[in-house]
Amino acid sequence: MTHIKEPAAGDLFPPERVETARNAVEAAGLDALLVTPGADLRYLTGYQAMPLERLTCLVVPARGEPFLVVPALEKPAAEASPAGALGIEITAFAETDDAYELIARRLPPGTRRFAVDNHMWAEKLLAFQDALPGAQAGLAGDVLSVLRMRKSAAEVAALRRAGEAIDRVHRRMGEWLRPGRTEREVARDIADAIVEAGHAQVDFVIVGSGPNGASPHHEVSDRVIRTGDPVVVDIGGTTAEGYCSDSTRVYAVGEPPAAFRELYEVLLHAQTAQTDAIRPGITAEELDAVGRDVIAAAGYGEHFIHRTGHGIGLESHEEPYIVAGSKRALEPGMAFSVEPGIYLPGSFGARIEDIAVCTEDGGERLNLTGRDLVVLPG
Amino acid sequence: MTHIKEPAAGDLFPPERVETARNAVEAAGLDALLVTPGADLRYLTGYQAMPLERLTCLVVPARGEPFLVVPALEKPAAEASPAGALGIEITAFAETDDAYELIARRLPPGTRRFAVDNHMWAEKLLAFQDALPGAQAGLAGDVLSVLRMRKSAAEVAALRRAGEAIDRVHRRMGEWLRPGRTEREVARDIADAIVEAGHAQVDFVIVGSGPNGASPHHEVSDRVIRTGDPVVVDIGGTTAEGYCSDSTRVYAVGEPPAAFRELYEVLLHAQTAQTDAIRPGITAEELDAVGRDVIAAAGYGEHFIHRTGHGIGLESHEEPYIVAGSKRALEPGMAFSVEPGIYLPGSFGARIEDIAVCTEDGGERLNLTGRDLVVLPG
Repeated sequence: MTHIKEPAAGDLFPPERVETARNAVEAAGLDALLVTPGADLRYLTGYQAMPLERLTCLVVPARGEPFLVVPALEKPAAEASPAGALGIEITAFAETDDAYELIARRLPPGTRRFAVDNHMWAEKLLAFQDALPGAQAGLAGDVLSVLRMRKSAAEVAALRRAGEAIDRVHRRMGEWLRPGRTEREVARDIADAIVEAGHAQVDFVIVGSGPNGASPHHEVSDRVIRTGDPVVVDIGGTTAEGYCSDSTRVYAVGEPPAAFRELYEVLLHAQTAQTDAIRPGITAEELDAVGRDVIAAAGYGEHFIHRTGHGIGLESHEEPYIVAGSKRALEPGMAFSVEPGIYLPGSFGARIEDIAVCTEDGGERLNLTGRDLVVLPG
Repeated sequence: MTHIKEPAAGDLFPPERVETARNAVEAAGLDALLVTPGADLRYLTGYQAMPLERLTCLVVPARGEPFLVVPALEKPAAEASPAGALGIEITAFAETDDAYELIARRLPPGTRRFAVDNHMWAEKLLAFQDALPGAQAGLAGDVLSVLRMRKSAAEVAALRRAGEAIDRVHRRMGEWLRPGRTEREVARDIADAIVEAGHAQVDFVIVGSGPNGASPHHEVSDRVIRTGDPVVVDIGGTTAEGYCSDSTRVYAVGEPPAAFRELYEVLLHAQTAQTDAIRPGITAEELDAVGRDVIAAAGYGEHFIHRTGHGIGLESHEEPYIVAGSKRALEPGMAFSVEPGIYLPGSFGARIEDIAVCTEDGGERLNLTGRDLVVLPG
């Protein structure tokens, strides 16, 4: 059950989002918003178009009616998608038309500032810049991320389901993870399980055994897992509803070195303090510091070499980022990872990650497998 | 076995490509090439980094040494990837550094024109434009597509393996496709089979039954397949080596309407004439016309509403496009789809697609399942 478009849950893509975006565009002093296929287009319209070479673009003028521009051969598919039920105009262009000129002609003559979705391809952005030479392009991320950051109850429920699905995979780890197998062999089994557990697609599988656990973005290798290895397993997928999961646990295959247990206890203390500290009003950098301070006080400060976390939703990584320097205050509905780590290059490393949601008065973890070190048979 | 990084075949990513790109950049009068994660970066370095919010960028100055800029926490992973074996500098930046400024400072002072990979995200392109205010951004596609379009023998072999894998799925269609099932149910089985057949991931599964076959980019719906329906099945995936497959066949579940058989014979004649016509020197628009003329002569001209095909390689859609208006002459090594279609909205449609490679003196099809109409039990 991989990568098949499933019908969108009705309340996950409510129709008023385009109007909300229009208001935000106007309030930001922009003249138009241009959104090409990706998470922002899916968020606003429910339309899960593939980003390809032909232009598909939602045009949201600050003043005036929004419209969706699609290649002619995709018009039926667009109309059949949730976008077709929004009541906005869907306009098609032929194979040899210039869709950028078409859009430029339909924008008001005084168009000076337009915003594009942050992941729009350069070839499309440059074509829009050419077609609108008097106007300046900016990023829509500031406007759209504000909307996407505050998850509705339906979105939180979707993230909760995604969290439960990845938890099901972590609970089975003992079926696959043992000495004598390579990281890659274990990863293949995990990938199959991610789909079986209810995801539509696998997003990533990181299996970092022994010293590979000290490289935070090590993915997989042919290293053979050995008795005594701590193994960092960081996995995630996207559900059919479009929401992402992401959770990291550490598994020791047999008793790990005493120095590892000591490091792990510090990390567990730090990550638990962080998830306990989530509440509206705490800033991202304060939340990052809660864990960073614990780790530094124990003498591992130089070894926590990345931010605490990233937002999550329709994308695996989105706003808000939980990082030093961000004074953004958390608000109810924000969903993000809490994933501090301690890395000793050449030896081992550890990371503990849960997705959490800020609630009205605190936080709720969406990954609920135990956080104590798991010791599998060695 | 979904979405696990497999080791790159040595001769699929030869180390000299960065130097070849540098020569092309200089020859094009550009000062530098900037390549972020995606097919172009994989093509040049073998590094299959995920495009995420932190910058990863291969910098290829026209004059001077190339270097790869990566987030600090990804440096070990970059060094462990094929990029680490290229002999180019891999330079890391810390969580709170400005990677764009870092790159801007390292480019020669007279940098006036830089080219970016066509799929670079707007947020990165705009950040580069800000960091290099005196310079103009252009697309690297023209330079890089020239390289990627001419597949090496190793790449053709990889595409051949991808074609064989998707053929294996088409040959099994009778296991899943029958009346009484929905398109979506059939598609889920096909998706599983795409992975079982040897792909690392599913790229798309289109099942267009009856009137849905008349919408070329219809994906799947809950329509129940009926006896007599022609069903367009257009499927593809990416292999572990990174190369894409894509093939379309039509299956009638029980005897289809006579009008459909008539339409299908015309289409088969057109697509066969096209694959037979492939040779070095024929232009893309001439090849498109070979099929378009057959279809128009039979009275269906208004119903072939899209181009003949798209290039294929590390991406499902790339240069060269086989479309009216393109005077590009085919050369040995070019790989592309040949997929004419005839669509009668409200009734049915058909499309026949093979991937083909232009050889020294003709063409070679990489999809070899029979092209006669298949009639499955109704």
